[in-house]
Amino acid sequence: MVLAEKKQNSLSLERKMKSDIELINSYLDKYLEIRYPHVIWEAMRYSVLAKGKRIRPVLMLESAKACHGDINNVIPAACALEMLHCQSLIHDDLPCMDNDDYRRGQLTNHKIYGEATAVLAGDALLAYAPQVILNYTPESVDRKILLQVLDEFLKAAGAMGIVGGQVVDIESESKEIDLNTFNYILMHKTGELFKFAVRAGALLSQAEEEKLNALTSYGEKIGYAFQIADDILDVTGTLEEIGKTPGKDHKLKKNTYVSFYGIEKSRKDLENICESAKKILVDSGINSELLFNIANNIVMKAVK
Amino acid sequence: MVLAEKKQNSLSLERKMKSDIELINSYLDKYLEIRYPHVIWEAMRYSVLAKGKRIRPVLMLESAKACHGDINNVIPAACALEMLHCQSLIHDDLPCMDNDDYRRGQLTNHKIYGEATAVLAGDALLAYAPQVILNYTPESVDRKILLQVLDEFLKAAGAMGIVGGQVVDIESESKEIDLNTFNYILMHKTGELFKFAVRAGALLSQAEEEKLNALTSYGEKIGYAFQIADDILDVTGTLEEIGKTPGKDHKLKKNTYVSFYGIEKSRKDLENICESAKKILVDSGINSELLFNIANNIVMKAVK
Repeated sequence: MVLAEKKQNSLSLERKMKSDIELINSYLDKYLEIRYPHVIWEAMRYSVLAKGKRIRPVLMLESAKACHGDINNVIPAACALEMLHCQSLIHDDLPCMDNDDYRRGQLTNHKIYGEATAVLAGDALLAYAPQVILNYTPESVDRKILLQVLDEFLKAAGAMGIVGGQVVDIESESKEIDLNTFNYILMHKTGELFKFAVRAGALLSQAEEEKLNALTSYGEKIGYAFQIADDILDVTGTLEEIGKTPGKDHKLKKNTYVSFYGIEKSRKDLENICESAKKILVDSGINSELLFNIANNIVMKAVK
Repeated sequence: MVLAEKKQNSLSLERKMKSDIELINSYLDKYLEIRYPHVIWEAMRYSVLAKGKRIRPVLMLESAKACHGDINNVIPAACALEMLHCQSLIHDDLPCMDNDDYRRGQLTNHKIYGEATAVLAGDALLAYAPQVILNYTPESVDRKILLQVLDEFLKAAGAMGIVGGQVVDIESESKEIDLNTFNYILMHKTGELFKFAVRAGALLSQAEEEKLNALTSYGEKIGYAFQIADDILDVTGTLEEIGKTPGKDHKLKKNTYVSFYGIEKSRKDLENICESAKKILVDSGINSELLFNIANNIVMKAVK
């Protein structure tokens, strides 16, 4: 595909995603209204309302649409997911973790509010996000489904989810690791939140088992692909393109897809995984242009 | 009261609390079984299974007993509360926060596992604790009550609870603050978890409104008293007695009850608050020797 064509496709997808993103942003703004003590809500807002791609909440909205669900039923969980993602970024960026100065094109949370408040802002988001699901999901949603969504959310947030991925990632820095360990990091650091996104969208729309399973596989593949693309862009991207310091993983001697397999195989695998994610949609009759295009877009942004 | 008498009363209370504590410890051990990745579960266990007083979970069990509830209904929430308390201690002890080396008579979490893992162990506990409530509270408990307990738990954990108290506390270091701000810190840093302890015990036992309200007031007063006692012991206690570095608050120029009112008034107020907590129990016909004695014990440990 030539560059101009790629750019056009990417723009078209962005336009389609725009209304989802605006919806999410307006609810994030509402849920995170400033309360006392102001500084903690300001710190939470600073990171959550920064210009992000909102890919996780968009995936949830689109998964719900693909299951003919009511969008109002998923908005709180979609916003909670974005809050959780931002919580993990705030803590990952701390000096004792990845020590990053830039995120989403702005200074990191601790650079603005100091480390102590950044730790607490992360904690506050982690406690508040499930409260958003509990208090704002419409009463019409079956409480049993609500409890399942809440449980899967907390699982994705903790030691069985992103924290587990992050801790193995840190433990593995500068070390040679086996394929199982590498796949564990990949699936848990990024995969868990992508999987949760599409599953919550389906669950809150009372999708039938078959559709739920297909979307779960799609989400896992997309999460995997997203991390590979991120690893590629750490090598090839600029600060402007990726909104954070490039070359950071290499410097920290992280085990990335690129360090594991080299750049060529990374690009090839990324394409194949996204193809198989799209095939799942086609095979299971999930007719969602946006879910289809998100898979395309992950390849496009990383394979130049 | 002479010292020998005080010690005897304290020992007798400890004996009575012992069976509650053993119950809590056995379930904490069970809920926190080591899973992959081992290091994060070990770090979580290190802090949670350290020798603590377990006053919060004990308050919950005793509140449930005072409401003639089934102890099995509250064990998961009681353990979740202790996990939440430990999460806040792990993060408070970090170098960027209070920078403490000792807690509960052992090295702090980051001194053993490093700062990155300590941050993540706190996050993992914060995500896992509500999962314990969700997954282990017996099916027989009304889901509406379960959701209320979960909501109050998350509120106590976040910016409207202990995080709020902690952030105002940090903001106020080395500053003169007004009485409202001081009371906010006092009520939120410690009060929220004590209040939640007795409320959850009552809610999960389907206590009538009047009893719930009385126990809520009792919990607020006990939490307030506990913090005053802690502030007194920061001045008068030893490392062996309090399990953490004494004189720390003074060094950090924290606004404590003692720095605000002086040691004499602190002791007097502590006695008065505990007396009024006991009066609430008597007036509302809550016949719990242990809740009564906990109030006595808070005074005794601090007023030598």
